[in-house]
Amino acid sequence: MSKKLRIGALASGGGTNLQAIIDRCLDNSIDAEVALVISNNPDAGALERARKAGIPFQCIDHRGFDSRESYDAALVKALQSAGVELVVLAGFMRLISSVLLDAYPGRIMNIHPALLPAFPGLHVQRKALEYGARFSGCTVHFVDKGVDTGPIIIQAVVPVLDNDTEQSLSERILRQEHRIYPQAIHLFAQGRLRVEGRRVLLDPPLSPTEAALTNPEIR
Amino acid sequence: MSKKLRIGALASGGGTNLQAIIDRCLDNSIDAEVALVISNNPDAGALERARKAGIPFQCIDHRGFDSRESYDAALVKALQSAGVELVVLAGFMRLISSVLLDAYPGRIMNIHPALLPAFPGLHVQRKALEYGARFSGCTVHFVDKGVDTGPIIIQAVVPVLDNDTEQSLSERILRQEHRIYPQAIHLFAQGRLRVEGRRVLLDPPLSPTEAALTNPEIR
Repeated sequence: MSKKLRIGALASGGGTNLQAIIDRCLDNSIDAEVALVISNNPDAGALERARKAGIPFQCIDHRGFDSRESYDAALVKALQSAGVELVVLAGFMRLISSVLLDAYPGRIMNIHPALLPAFPGLHVQRKALEYGARFSGCTVHFVDKGVDTGPIIIQAVVPVLDNDTEQSLSERILRQEHRIYPQAIHLFAQGRLRVEGRRVLLDPPLSPTEAALTNPEIR
Repeated sequence: MSKKLRIGALASGGGTNLQAIIDRCLDNSIDAEVALVISNNPDAGALERARKAGIPFQCIDHRGFDSRESYDAALVKALQSAGVELVVLAGFMRLISSVLLDAYPGRIMNIHPALLPAFPGLHVQRKALEYGARFSGCTVHFVDKGVDTGPIIIQAVVPVLDNDTEQSLSERILRQEHRIYPQAIHLFAQGRLRVEGRRVLLDPPLSPTEAALTNPEIR
């Protein structure tokens, strides 16, 4: 029986992506387990989700630290103690430093609610709507030194409708986030992601069934 | 019998987009006619396509002019003499100045082979492949003072495959260009495009059938 990939999730908010990952681990869609949930925010809904799911969780509040590096060192200590192999940022609102990057090189993922390189940063849906884009989506990527810049693992596309608000567009994209984040993690767990420079090659490639799961029909 | 919208096409290259527009005018998918084709390049395939289709054409070579403004003035003169109402840039490799913009405000369209705002400018497919994007596409937009920055009319999405080359990706995108450029022109001809700031609202909106034409199934 092969050992399941141990995931450490960092989350600052409500944790809906975390919940999707927890659920997919439980139903064995992902060959992994969430070993630890850490939030910088004591009120994060993500911590409550971990508690309900019986997953170890900690609040490590950034306000107790003088520097990003010392904060990241505390994160690394907690993650390594829990035997975490893949760090998953699920709505984590702190910038990460090289302390965390160097402890988990090529092993930190993030999800961004746009089709990178379009609309990086904050206020993503507002930017997409103001820009007048007809399509948006979400991107799971490995984290590198930049913000929203690392190698792309999976993307999903959604249409932007003329009567969309930030909320309706966010919700449409969030449904896709809940599909592709677990899938990206599963591909990592299966050892199918090969990073070459900026590109992530899937080896073996997605089967038609798997592709259908990540590339929903656009109408 | 309503008067057909008169299109002036500016093209520097082979003219496959021009051909798609010519063909859709002929089969009445677009309620318009190509009144004039202008190229800055005497060897442009686009001029031959115009000739074959019996459409008036001119080569106005930019090398005969001292400034962008004087060149644009020659373009405007030719376009206005032909009664052009909508200027369509179909692979036109010259930057346009305010002389042309001011003669046809809100009446100049361009197509770009990426999902703007991602990958503007040149060497588009190379950039998309190097970036590792999982999706790309094409964008028809109104032209404003910037490059690849004007209000977006229609976009189409294509998947990027792991074994894509610049050529295979360009070809996949080109097939979508040939669908959405005629459709954008038709919407303009029907008076259905309402520009509000950066956004282009479709009034009335695309019917499900029309939407299916622009938003192909992604698999």
